[in-house]
Amino acid sequence: MIRVVQLTLLGSILSNMLLVLGCAFFCGGLVYSQKEQVFDKGNAVVNSGLLLMAVMGLLFPTVLHYTHSEVHAGSSELALSRFSSCVMLVAYAAYLFFQLKSQPSSYTALTEETSQDEESSDDDEDPEISKWEAIIWLSILTAWVSLLSGYLVDAIEGASVSWKIPISFISVILLPIVGNAAEHAGAIMFAMKDKLDLSLGVAIGSSIQISMFAVPFCVVIGWMMGAQMDLNFQLFETATLFITVIVVAFFLQEGTSNYFKGLMLILCYLIVAASFFVHEDPHQDDI
Amino acid sequence: MIRVVQLTLLGSILSNMLLVLGCAFFCGGLVYSQKEQVFDKGNAVVNSGLLLMAVMGLLFPTVLHYTHSEVHAGSSELALSRFSSCVMLVAYAAYLFFQLKSQPSSYTALTEETSQDEESSDDDEDPEISKWEAIIWLSILTAWVSLLSGYLVDAIEGASVSWKIPISFISVILLPIVGNAAEHAGAIMFAMKDKLDLSLGVAIGSSIQISMFAVPFCVVIGWMMGAQMDLNFQLFETATLFITVIVVAFFLQEGTSNYFKGLMLILCYLIVAASFFVHEDPHQDDI
Amino acid sequence: MIRVVQLTLLGSILSNMLLVLGCAFFCGGLVYSQKEQVFDKGNAVVNSGLLLMAVMGLLFPTVLHYTHSEVHAGSSELALSRFSSCVMLVAYAAYLFFQLKSQPSSYTALTEETSQDEESSDDDEDPEISKWEAIIWLSILTAWVSLLSGYLVDAIEGASVSWKIPISFISVILLPIVGNAAEHAGAIMFAMKDKLDLSLGVAIGSSIQISMFAVPFCVVIGWMMGAQMDLNFQLFETATLFITVIVVAFFLQEGTSNYFKGLMLILCYLIVAASFFVHEDPHQDDI
Repeated sequence: MIRVVQLTLLGSILSNMLLVLGCAFFCGGLVYSQKEQVFDKGNAVVNSGLLLMAVMGLLFPTVLHYTHSEVHAGSSELALSRFSSCVMLVAYAAYLFFQLKSQPSSYTALTEETSQDEESSDDDEDPEISKWEAIIWLSILTAWVSLLSGYLVDAIEGASVSWKIPISFISVILLPIVGNAAEHAGAIMFAMKDKLDLSLGVAIGSSIQISMFAVPFCVVIGWMMGAQMDLNFQLFETATLFITVIVVAFFLQEGTSNYFKGLMLILCYLIVAASFFVHEDPHQDDI
Repeated sequence: MIRVVQLTLLGSILSNMLLVLGCAFFCGGLVYSQKEQVFDKGNAVVNSGLLLMAVMGLLFPTVLHYTHSEVHAGSSELALSRFSSCVMLVAYAAYLFFQLKSQPSSYTALTEETSQDEESSDDDEDPEISKWEAIIWLSILTAWVSLLSGYLVDAIEGASVSWKIPISFISVILLPIVGNAAEHAGAIMFAMKDKLDLSLGVAIGSSIQISMFAVPFCVVIGWMMGAQMDLNFQLFETATLFITVIVVAFFLQEGTSNYFKGLMLILCYLIVAASFFVHEDPHQDDI
Repeated sequence: MIRVVQLTLLGSILSNMLLVLGCAFFCGGLVYSQKEQVFDKGNAVVNSGLLLMAVMGLLFPTVLHYTHSEVHAGSSELALSRFSSCVMLVAYAAYLFFQLKSQPSSYTALTEETSQDEESSDDDEDPEISKWEAIIWLSILTAWVSLLSGYLVDAIEGASVSWKIPISFISVILLPIVGNAAEHAGAIMFAMKDKLDLSLGVAIGSSIQISMFAVPFCVVIGWMMGAQMDLNFQLFETATLFITVIVVAFFLQEGTSNYFKGLMLILCYLIVAASFFVHEDPHQDDI
């Protein structure tokens, strides 16, 4: 079942980055079509950097496997994956620590700004709630995905046979869309209230959570349980993730959004989804 | 002849992004060597994003073919190419719609700015003309390329044999340089008048036009006519396009230009040209 | 011995970009943890662009070799490498010329700014010294690396056998850490004095120096001496360099640094080092 877990996690990352973010930008851009919506550029750049680091962690085992240049074929790749996973968990812990330490000041600034802008509005304590909401959404998501991954693996194989859809498409595209529904709704809602930083927090934040925490955590858990889960997601999947992160990073780097950028991200997701529809996982015997 | 069309289109994209843009930056930078020339950063970032999206569209069929992981070998790749082409045409239509809708305001701002700067100059109605000029250049280019592609394919094969130059070099480098001559002149002229936004419009605009409109349009036309044209440009060509787009995107992201950046782009083009000179297309039987 | 030279140069680039820069950001960020340290964004973007151009120069021979699409197997790749090396040397010369020509004005501005900020401090003539210091560090490094590369190649092979560490790990990771020690100390020292532009100059500057000058210079020298050194660093090494440059470029693009970004770069270096520890160079017979 390792491969299905891998693919579902990958699919969650892709769907959060392209579909959830794209829909949030698109809906937000339609509601506020007269102006450009802005978000915290510095934060977006740090997040892009983290996503690229996650791609780096996945890229090395894949390329190593692909070029057949391991010192000890098979075991080297696994050792590298486990080491990289530990490094990624350290990086994620540092990210959380940094966010919590730097958040208060930037958060206060945001709140003040908000209250200056709309002093008489009823939004004054809204951010506080939204922060908790965001955390709750994120925990719901995590529980949801793990539940789905746990119970539905059997169902997937059945569905794959009866609907004649490749397992990789179900794992990478269909499952995460269902799994990310709550998050999806949250991100769009925040964008339509012009709170784009929260939308980004949900969409990119959970992409980072999955790629820098869930994926390496699974590898470490697998290590303890003696399962040979590694970070080698195969060439096609890693290339998909790489180009996706690059595209999203370029769309985020300016710190503004509009409906056009949202639409582009959604269209990119369509291309990704189509690719997985015609892609057959070459290692079905590993599942 | 499908492969020659593919390669000429690819060459046009590369030559527009590196050679035309590089020469425009270089000449503009030499004329205005005392100051940094600026252009619209937001626009440049959106354009880079679109080019990356086009790369994404070309990357998936190539990687799919390369990893031999299609569901149905051969036909899957073609189906994916056709689907992606339709998505890219939708994206291009959205891009045109967005440009036309957002252009007026930014355009008026530009014109006002211009008239404030040089109120007494004779440039006041120049932008209006230049816009039409730009459109005319673009249509000339398109007609030119299609004419060349249509009539000269036979000539290429003859030249390849008699001059001992690989067909891919003629298609990717020589043909587009001739085909883009008018555009080239336009972009340099605009840059030397310090109208860098127009130069970018010509150089990057037509790269986008070719990659997001001409390429998928050829695939769709080929689909109607029963020709098996797909988006699989082979690994070497796709890697070239990918790294080129990344380099150009990084040089554009700051919104300023000088002669050094221009020179770098021209030198990059020399490296690309040299690569194609020693590169033999492995699928000559497809031509 | 060509392969060891290649790997040491590659390792120097990686260690400068990730380890030296990461430590400088981290230490600087800890000392000035209350504020964000800033550096010259425009310069950082130009440097990222140059590094990407160097990656481009290395990428083409590698991909060409890998896809077996050379016109004349073997010799084409070498010819391309030599041509690209000459282009890269021209680019580096242009870069130096541009730096020297544009430096005075930006340098004066920096000095003035500094003297305005801390008029009564004893730092007034510090930049002048630091500039020379930087140049001296750089020359020490170059001499150091070349000495090490020359004398220690035999020692490496012995160490590799007796310690059971792959030669590529010693060449890419251990040797450059020792070789870059002086530079490393300089970059951290400058960062802790809040002179981040000098840290960047040391770390990124010498990455550029190695990738755009030392590497192509070795190829040209090899050409004169009849040695078949080319720019084909193999797929795994080129992919490592590519993703590293992209990650660093994204972390630099905002023009600010803090301890978190520094920590991320160091962690990335750990992942890279681990990858080379389990990576065996497939062409040991070339050494």
